[in-house]
Amino acid sequence: MELERAKGTEDYPPEKKILRDNIVRTLIQVFERYGFDPLETPILERYETLSAKYAGGAEILKETFRLKDQGDRELGLRYDLTVPLARFIAMNPQISFPFKRYQIEKVFRDGPITKSRIREFWQCDVDIVGSKSYLADVEIIRLALDTLKELKLKCLVKINNRKLLNEIIEYAGVTTNTMPVILSIDKFYKIGKSGVEKELTEKGLDKKQINKIMSILSVNGSNDKKLKTIKNKIDKDGIAELEKVLKYFKQGVVFDPTLARGLSYYTGTIFEIVLEDQNLGCSVGGGGRYDNMIGSFSNNRDIPATGISFGLEPLTTALSKIEKEKKTVVDLFVIPIGYTEEALKITKKLREFNINTDIDLNERNVSKNLNYANNKGIPYVLFVGEQEVKKNKVKLRNMKTGKEQIVPMNKVPGILKRK
Amino acid sequence: MELERAKGTEDYPPEKKILRDNIVRTLIQVFERYGFDPLETPILERYETLSAKYAGGAEILKETFRLKDQGDRELGLRYDLTVPLARFIAMNPQISFPFKRYQIEKVFRDGPITKSRIREFWQCDVDIVGSKSYLADVEIIRLALDTLKELKLKCLVKINNRKLLNEIIEYAGVTTNTMPVILSIDKFYKIGKSGVEKELTEKGLDKKQINKIMSILSVNGSNDKKLKTIKNKIDKDGIAELEKVLKYFKQGVVFDPTLARGLSYYTGTIFEIVLEDQNLGCSVGGGGRYDNMIGSFSNNRDIPATGISFGLEPLTTALSKIEKEKKTVVDLFVIPIGYTEEALKITKKLREFNINTDIDLNERNVSKNLNYANNKGIPYVLFVGEQEVKKNKVKLRNMKTGKEQIVPMNKVPGILKRK
Repeated sequence: MELERAKGTEDYPPEKKILRDNIVRTLIQVFERYGFDPLETPILERYETLSAKYAGGAEILKETFRLKDQGDRELGLRYDLTVPLARFIAMNPQISFPFKRYQIEKVFRDGPITKSRIREFWQCDVDIVGSKSYLADVEIIRLALDTLKELKLKCLVKINNRKLLNEIIEYAGVTTNTMPVILSIDKFYKIGKSGVEKELTEKGLDKKQINKIMSILSVNGSNDKKLKTIKNKIDKDGIAELEKVLKYFKQGVVFDPTLARGLSYYTGTIFEIVLEDQNLGCSVGGGGRYDNMIGSFSNNRDIPATGISFGLEPLTTALSKIEKEKKTVVDLFVIPIGYTEEALKITKKLREFNINTDIDLNERNVSKNLNYANNKGIPYVLFVGEQEVKKNKVKLRNMKTGKEQIVPMNKVPGILKRK
Repeated sequence: MELERAKGTEDYPPEKKILRDNIVRTLIQVFERYGFDPLETPILERYETLSAKYAGGAEILKETFRLKDQGDRELGLRYDLTVPLARFIAMNPQISFPFKRYQIEKVFRDGPITKSRIREFWQCDVDIVGSKSYLADVEIIRLALDTLKELKLKCLVKINNRKLLNEIIEYAGVTTNTMPVILSIDKFYKIGKSGVEKELTEKGLDKKQINKIMSILSVNGSNDKKLKTIKNKIDKDGIAELEKVLKYFKQGVVFDPTLARGLSYYTGTIFEIVLEDQNLGCSVGGGGRYDNMIGSFSNNRDIPATGISFGLEPLTTALSKIEKEKKTVVDLFVIPIGYTEEALKITKKLREFNINTDIDLNERNVSKNLNYANNKGIPYVLFVGEQEVKKNKVKLRNMKTGKEQIVPMNKVPGILKRK
């Protein structure tokens, strides 16, 4: 039998998983500091939920893994964490708003595989459900900046507003549904200005309309200058909201009128986080305000929401380039030289001191054991042999420096912590 | 649209998820202390892997969720974490043994739903791959005892040995495949002695054979006494291995010759962890030695293994009965009374102090905000109003005692930590 993984899936051996876990721990710390509580929902959802009118839309449904249970019920693997949140809110009408939750879990997309796109991956979502206030958007963007800062990644938040995009399209005299136009604008960075113009022509816009849209999208200068330039032509809700939000950010947030975001459910502020030092070919997260989607699952109750989703894969890619790889969580490896019983007792004691301790159980010789510890990247080795047992001491070896010292057991935790 | 979850799946709102996360954190701490490294493998596996000859077997395959990807490849949702481990080892022949890994992830079984059985659940697995030594079994059982101790759950480890079971069946003169007999013995606690006897009769054993088996299975007394009684009749590998392992445990581990475990791949020591104070109707974990299964995925290389799997659901059920429910991770809720800008600055500062801080963004009145904080179970509330801003102080309210104090900002972290 030729063993393979399912296409588009990955294993994360210790040297990769340790970094991923550390990133997740940092995310959780920041999310909780901002007052978000954890939520878990299942990976399996009813297909009816995933394909609901205001859910992810036709494009995402094409990439949804479908299956049936033994009772022939139609199921799917969730493609995001937002639809399950909407389903959860609808099924728990007693929840008091604002409901602030984070959710760090796997999602699935049966789509084409690229360097930055696999089929089973983690999303790290943070949402405020039940607040109309622009301050909720400000909180989410602050959280994004703090998260990246805590991860020691330099980033830029690009910000725009869906109302403004709609107003620009209206200003250009386009009277049809704005979403197809927004989807073309969304490709600005991928296909360039001329590419967008070509698409818009294909979508039936005339030259004058396209020029009007482009004249707005290509404003430049500082945030204030861009806002002012646009405001002179379109002084409506979009710019007003952007002004209110941007007031809170002196740096790190850049107003980009070409930012569009692909999903149709956004209704106000939208943003994306890109790294300053690394070109990943994708953002590390993005989000925005979506005031209708959650409520559409709850008999159209008025439930405004705003949130962000970080991708664990791009964050891990970025950090793996700057962080030293850690291959093991083990602090110390005990090598018994004959004295296995003594070594087991010492191992027990070290673990009581909260030292992550491994021990050779296979009675290998010293050089094999040292090789093993070295390959694994375990920083310290401790020998338990006749001399040591007689003296009631242990021999500790720093695997990096090769330095050895014979010390009483109770000194070991201190030495390891000093490192 | 009637919204429902997929049958057999659960949501875990904050009040449940916080407890689950705390349990997982404790498990990770103990697992790492014992020198185990984290591993992550995908939920989607090729169906060919899941249905391999030495994988989970026919019973479990009946309960496997099957699906196809867009390329028409046969996939399944994994039903355990052991088969993926075997697949991972086979695909990474460079790994140095022993490979000690833990894995805390979701698995799926499309089976009948009971109080303690759902279709999407977490397993918490710890395995030592590549050690023949009985000391590896001792380590795993010690880890089990330490894990339960750290969770403050009183438990008992029931232990037996598959070699002994085979020897008992052989001693009774049964010459056919022993596994069907073991599967009946496995039901001892469910259907009682007479039930097992009935099944064995149905499976073709005669009265004499059954009596011989029962005479061994019904020994009683201390571990030592039971071992001695059986040894007098069957002095082979099974008893010898049990003696060696049991020597390391003065208490908490009970030799139970009726313990059988359902899976066919076990080859030596087997054990189950049951709670002493609570009757969950199931164990909270179990495992044992399986020396052939991993290797069967690696061209029959000799790769002995031993491990344990904890169920997160029974552990959560047990702990939810004794732990006070925590409904939020939020330490403090900021209520601006007019002074939103000041309140936002204070919120920022509190978060810098690592206090999990939430703030009202919806300009609700004080009583609504107090209700919200109270419903959520947030322990402290902080008011920012005219008086406080003028005095450069804040008013802190302990939500449990109702006690309020006006203090300078920098005193707040100390007060919260003292709690």
